[in-house]
Amino acid sequence: MLKHLYDTDCVTWSPQGKLFQVEYAMEAVKQGSICLGLKSNDFVVLCSLKRQPSELAGYQEKQFKIDDHMAIAIAGLTADARVLCKYMRTECLEYKYTYESHHPVGRLVFKVAEKSQHKTQSGAKRPYGVGLLVAGIDPNGVHLFETCPSGNYYEYKCQAIGSRSQAARTYFESWFHLFEKSTLEQLILHGLSALKKAIMEDEELNEKNVEVGILGKNQKFIHLNAQELKDYIVKLETFNANTQIQQE
Amino acid sequence: MLKHLYDTDCVTWSPQGKLFQVEYAMEAVKQGSICLGLKSNDFVVLCSLKRQPSELAGYQEKQFKIDDHMAIAIAGLTADARVLCKYMRTECLEYKYTYESHHPVGRLVFKVAEKSQHKTQSGAKRPYGVGLLVAGIDPNGVHLFETCPSGNYYEYKCQAIGSRSQAARTYFESWFHLFEKSTLEQLILHGLSALKKAIMEDEELNEKNVEVGILGKNQKFIHLNAQELKDYIVKLETFNANTQIQQE
Amino acid sequence: MLKHLYDTDCVTWSPQGKLFQVEYAMEAVKQGSICLGLKSNDFVVLCSLKRQPSELAGYQEKQFKIDDHMAIAIAGLTADARVLCKYMRTECLEYKYTYESHHPVGRLVFKVAEKSQHKTQSGAKRPYGVGLLVAGIDPNGVHLFETCPSGNYYEYKCQAIGSRSQAARTYFESWFHLFEKSTLEQLILHGLSALKKAIMEDEELNEKNVEVGILGKNQKFIHLNAQELKDYIVKLETFNANTQIQQE
Amino acid sequence: MLKHLYDTDCVTWSPQGKLFQVEYAMEAVKQGSICLGLKSNDFVVLCSLKRQPSELAGYQEKQFKIDDHMAIAIAGLTADARVLCKYMRTECLEYKYTYESHHPVGRLVFKVAEKSQHKTQSGAKRPYGVGLLVAGIDPNGVHLFETCPSGNYYEYKCQAIGSRSQAARTYFESWFHLFEKSTLEQLILHGLSALKKAIMEDEELNEKNVEVGILGKNQKFIHLNAQELKDYIVKLETFNANTQIQQE
Amino acid sequence: MLKHLYDTDCVTWSPQGKLFQVEYAMEAVKQGSICLGLKSNDFVVLCSLKRQPSELAGYQEKQFKIDDHMAIAIAGLTADARVLCKYMRTECLEYKYTYESHHPVGRLVFKVAEKSQHKTQSGAKRPYGVGLLVAGIDPNGVHLFETCPSGNYYEYKCQAIGSRSQAARTYFESWFHLFEKSTLEQLILHGLSALKKAIMEDEELNEKNVEVGILGKNQKFIHLNAQELKDYIVKLETFNANTQIQQE
Amino acid sequence: MLKHLYDTDCVTWSPQGKLFQVEYAMEAVKQGSICLGLKSNDFVVLCSLKRQPSELAGYQEKQFKIDDHMAIAIAGLTADARVLCKYMRTECLEYKYTYESHHPVGRLVFKVAEKSQHKTQSGAKRPYGVGLLVAGIDPNGVHLFETCPSGNYYEYKCQAIGSRSQAARTYFESWFHLFEKSTLEQLILHGLSALKKAIMEDEELNEKNVEVGILGKNQKFIHLNAQELKDYIVKLETFNANTQIQQE
Amino acid sequence: MLKHLYDTDCVTWSPQGKLFQVEYAMEAVKQGSICLGLKSNDFVVLCSLKRQPSELAGYQEKQFKIDDHMAIAIAGLTADARVLCKYMRTECLEYKYTYESHHPVGRLVFKVAEKSQHKTQSGAKRPYGVGLLVAGIDPNGVHLFETCPSGNYYEYKCQAIGSRSQAARTYFESWFHLFEKSTLEQLILHGLSALKKAIMEDEELNEKNVEVGILGKNQKFIHLNAQELKDYIVKLETFNANTQIQQE
Repeated sequence: MLKHLYDTDCVTWSPQGKLFQVEYAMEAVKQGSICLGLKSNDFVVLCSLKRQPSELAGYQEKQFKIDDHMAIAIAGLTADARVLCKYMRTECLEYKYTYESHHPVGRLVFKVAEKSQHKTQSGAKRPYGVGLLVAGIDPNGVHLFETCPSGNYYEYKCQAIGSRSQAARTYFESWFHLFEKSTLEQLILHGLSALKKAIMEDEELNEKNVEVGILGKNQKFIHLNAQELKDYIVKLETFNANTQIQQE
Repeated sequence: MLKHLYDTDCVTWSPQGKLFQVEYAMEAVKQGSICLGLKSNDFVVLCSLKRQPSELAGYQEKQFKIDDHMAIAIAGLTADARVLCKYMRTECLEYKYTYESHHPVGRLVFKVAEKSQHKTQSGAKRPYGVGLLVAGIDPNGVHLFETCPSGNYYEYKCQAIGSRSQAARTYFESWFHLFEKSTLEQLILHGLSALKKAIMEDEELNEKNVEVGILGKNQKFIHLNAQELKDYIVKLETFNANTQIQQE
Repeated sequence: MLKHLYDTDCVTWSPQGKLFQVEYAMEAVKQGSICLGLKSNDFVVLCSLKRQPSELAGYQEKQFKIDDHMAIAIAGLTADARVLCKYMRTECLEYKYTYESHHPVGRLVFKVAEKSQHKTQSGAKRPYGVGLLVAGIDPNGVHLFETCPSGNYYEYKCQAIGSRSQAARTYFESWFHLFEKSTLEQLILHGLSALKKAIMEDEELNEKNVEVGILGKNQKFIHLNAQELKDYIVKLETFNANTQIQQE
Repeated sequence: MLKHLYDTDCVTWSPQGKLFQVEYAMEAVKQGSICLGLKSNDFVVLCSLKRQPSELAGYQEKQFKIDDHMAIAIAGLTADARVLCKYMRTECLEYKYTYESHHPVGRLVFKVAEKSQHKTQSGAKRPYGVGLLVAGIDPNGVHLFETCPSGNYYEYKCQAIGSRSQAARTYFESWFHLFEKSTLEQLILHGLSALKKAIMEDEELNEKNVEVGILGKNQKFIHLNAQELKDYIVKLETFNANTQIQQE
Repeated sequence: MLKHLYDTDCVTWSPQGKLFQVEYAMEAVKQGSICLGLKSNDFVVLCSLKRQPSELAGYQEKQFKIDDHMAIAIAGLTADARVLCKYMRTECLEYKYTYESHHPVGRLVFKVAEKSQHKTQSGAKRPYGVGLLVAGIDPNGVHLFETCPSGNYYEYKCQAIGSRSQAARTYFESWFHLFEKSTLEQLILHGLSALKKAIMEDEELNEKNVEVGILGKNQKFIHLNAQELKDYIVKLETFNANTQIQQE
Repeated sequence: MLKHLYDTDCVTWSPQGKLFQVEYAMEAVKQGSICLGLKSNDFVVLCSLKRQPSELAGYQEKQFKIDDHMAIAIAGLTADARVLCKYMRTECLEYKYTYESHHPVGRLVFKVAEKSQHKTQSGAKRPYGVGLLVAGIDPNGVHLFETCPSGNYYEYKCQAIGSRSQAARTYFESWFHLFEKSTLEQLILHGLSALKKAIMEDEELNEKNVEVGILGKNQKFIHLNAQELKDYIVKLETFNANTQIQQE
Repeated sequence: MLKHLYDTDCVTWSPQGKLFQVEYAMEAVKQGSICLGLKSNDFVVLCSLKRQPSELAGYQEKQFKIDDHMAIAIAGLTADARVLCKYMRTECLEYKYTYESHHPVGRLVFKVAEKSQHKTQSGAKRPYGVGLLVAGIDPNGVHLFETCPSGNYYEYKCQAIGSRSQAARTYFESWFHLFEKSTLEQLILHGLSALKKAIMEDEELNEKNVEVGILGKNQKFIHLNAQELKDYIVKLETFNANTQIQQE
């Protein structure tokens, strides 16, 4: 009974110094379909598994362009993600208007985190139920951030969030030492490999349920088209073999 | 007991990362009388089963024109639907006034979703209890969207919502590959066939309890009149036979 | 215990997708004394059973004129009805002032429904506890609407609300096919007949406890006076006999 | 247990369609000391039993003049009554200032009822705990209204509210057919007779614990003074006898 | 259990039509140290028993001058009393500024009562926990009022409130018939006698724990000084004896 | 169980007429480290026991200068004390600016009390958890006040608040008759003696854990420095002996 | 059960005079990773143990520069810390703009404490869940403060907060007498030694998980770079040996 007294209100501390509502919101992130990101010195790649609410619907997009130099992949409540996405786009526009340059990536992530923290303390009714992977390029280099419902954010070399993302992170742990100097193609293939680890046994990656976004020093954010995806998924088989060998 | 602590307040996360109140609101959608939509490359058709609160009343309309190029069919709380309908009409008017063109369909659906998400987080007392099928035409083509109490929305080729809609969706799953190139007549007949699957055994489709709205590239949104409905219902029998043959 | 968690707050969804508080408010309508309405092509008639809080008091009015072309009969909380009545009168006045014509009936009913829906979602403490029968004439013809605490409204050919109204509705179901072409006198007699079915066995209709309002294409809304009521009640006996014969 | 969930909040409907808090507030009215009113064609008389918090205090006034042509007698919370009384006086003043005539009685009673209804729905914390008998004269004639915590009001020929008021009402039921044509003296004596029925056996009416206010077509509202009261109480004995005879 | 549901919120009616929170606030008044007032045709006298939080502190004042013609004695929460006291002083100042005369006593008491009522209904969190005896002189004569947390007020010839005040009231009941024509000295001695009845057996009245304020037609409100108090306390013994004789 | 229903909300009266939350806040005062004050005709002295959160920290100041002529010593929540302290300083500044003289001591204490009372009634969430000893000089003389979370305040000759303050008060009770005519040195030594009574057996007074503030008719508020404190602590031993003798 | 009634609302006093929510928030501080600070006459050094949410992420910064002359190290909720950090930076900027000098350290710490206190009383939903060590230099010298969720703050010679910080404090207690006259290098080595005591047995300090910030009279706030950190960690072994000897 004890626990429940603290977990129905996001702003109540438990005797252990926890905010349960924040932790439950993070549970919603864990249940979103997986998305992941990884970066080299020149590129950052976002890969997501798109879900189809039914055969009759289109696949749900999981990546959103914020600006030419920034994009997000989401896990959790899409409706909450849209609120944050809209906020980020507006901030970018206003920054561009004021300073005539791109919004620095880290500073925008900071603002999103600030907005999320606010939902956990100042009269808001619940924390956001979504986690973002923010890919961005700015004069400081190539960035990959994760933001959480708690208002925390972290910078990563590569990270996966959402359901079954642990498998992807395990893959990353074995290979991330190679990413820094990888070519864009290698990055994409590593991303897809990690994604493949995280899907269910009876699922398959294909050009419809996979979404790959790329962003580079001389490359505005774009999504791979269906043909490119197909090609990469074909290459993936050989690539996996290669990495098996490298690993031995 | 545990569950109930979370489900009386729409803004409280359960330990499993769920917002129960949102899910209960979606239950209200499932209990509304069925409506469905389907589209070809040139047309989108909405079919609904109208309910009569009693023999003494008129049948309840289930489809509302938003603008010449857009209409909605609803399942769930009519009173909530009217609020959203009025909002959509106002947005269309203002858009037309400002830009002298029709409101892009997807962007308006986005606004409705945003409004719905707001009801799940920011001090609102309950989520909306209504689902919309939004049919629209704009320069990007023919659209059919579904919006949910959660603030989610999906684009569909064909979709059915409301009570017993599963039967209609099952029908759609068998035939939707044909819709893209269907004529308007075929679309309407498929819609009515799907609707027929979803009614109770002792019910009959007739020109009074069925509402069919059509919208096309060169066709502003209109409802079929009673005579047209009658004709289609007659054709429906033969049509069904045909599709039986095609299916074999 | 489960149920009660949802029914103390009008804005909480139950797991079955119900808003209990709205349903309880509709219970208040069912407990109000009966009122009914019926219309022909040219006339609409409202009949109500007036209650007397005690022998020492006057009878409570149950019908209120909104404008020359519109009137309401109420069942449920009189105090809530007065709030809505005042609102409708104000709207009519403002409409007349702005457009120099009568407020269209359906549109005003829509506004009342919108106001009622608002009480079920946006911070209001309880839904209204009153149902209205709205009789009106406008260029579109003769109208009879019912509005509910939920924010729903329906157009009827004839309808009865309040306690024991089922008996009146049963009467209507047998005879409503005749109403469209009825004379005003026939309409009134049908209304009184239906009312008679709904009163308790030991009660009698008389010019004091019955209120009849009539509105027609060339007839502003008026109440029958005591003498007219007496005359009709006398005629009622013969009329009933006639209809007995017609029925056989 | 069930009942209590609904009765602690005035704005929650019970499953039976009741607002318990409103009913409890009416209980407060029933516990106030009795007051009654009765009217002829030309006069309206208010009689109240004044209570003395202790022998050391003056008797508590129970009747308040609103304007020359209007007065109230109260049962229930005096503090709440004063709020309403002040409101009525202000309305009368403003009306007089604007229209240079007396505030119509019914319309002011309507405003009081509207104010009371508001306390049962719109964020107010509790309904008023007082009932008013409003005596007034206007071009429409002589009026006697009762207002309730619920926001209801009724017009009466004669009415008694407060503790043990049933006995007075029973008296009225036997004699009210005579009131219409009674002289002022007769009205007062009937009022006092009814009051006498409602006091406890060991109590006595005297010029100190009785308050009688009179208002007539050519008579601004005044209270009888001690001597007049004494005289009437003396006459009361004979009068009672007379009415005994009349009754036989 | 039942009772407690109603008594934790001052604005909830109990099924018996009671506001428990108001009654509990009046309990706070009963626990304050006693104060009393009594008046003749020309004078009003306030007597209070001052408490000393410890031997090291001064005695707590229990009487406050509002204006030259008005003063209060308090029982209950001193902090609440100060709020009301400040309010009364401000009202007197503003009245004097506007009308160049003293604030009528009854009207100011009315305002205090109105303010107290407001705390029991309109969003305030708790009723005031203090009772006031208001002594005042105005063209209508010499006044002594009591105000309560409920928003009620009463005019008295003499009254005592606070702990053990019943004993003082009993004294008053025997002697108050003499007060009207008493001299100031007699009034003071009666007040002190009543006070003496209400103190504990092992307590003594002395010039330190007694506070006596006097106000008369030609006498602005003043406190007796220590010497005068001493003298009266000495006289008190003889005076008591005299009254013993008178009583026989 | 009963009690707890009243004590979780500071604004709820218990049936005994108590505000539990206010009493619990006063408990916080009792747990603060001790501070005390005492005054002669010309001087007022504040002595406090400073606590060190750890050996690594400085000692916590317990006395704050408000203005040249006023200072406070605190027991309870330091964070709450700072809020009040800042308020008092601002009031003094504004007073000086407006009237070009020092803020009268009693009037400022009154304002602090008013502010504290407000926290117990008007929507504030909790009473302050701090007690103040206010030392001040103004044309009316030398003052020592205590303010409480309840909004009460008392004037004292000498007073001690905080943990184990009873021992100091007992000391004061024996000696306070001498304070009025004491020299400043005697006052300080009495203060330190009282403080010594209140510390634990294994504690010692020294120049680090004792804070002594002095204020006099010709002496702005200052703290004794370490050397002065040392000297007084040395003298304290002899002084105690002397007073032993005087006492015999 | 008793306790829980008080600890779910930060603004409710417990009968023991405690604010449980404040204490639970302090628990969140205790669970943050350790940070510590220590100062000599000329320098103040902040050392923190940085945590890495996973191998794939960068280490989380625990120290933030506020201005050239001020920096903070944090333990607890990073998201809350950022809110305070931003506030402090803004205050510094505004101060500099207004006064053309650095913001005095103690005064800014006071403002942070004031802001924290506000979260425990005035309608805020929860106290901050973070503790700060504030290092600063101003004309008054070198400062090290700790601020708490309660709104308290303390000045320290050296202090450690966060998980396992007791071990570091124990180290400090043995050596802090030497810090005042330590060189910068000695200070850093003492800081690292204390940090080493507080890490788990299987952990190691290295240039990645340690963050050292230094600030001095002629030294703006900077972080040691990786090479410097490496060098100090190497020196640490010898240094520890030395101090062993000194201690003997």
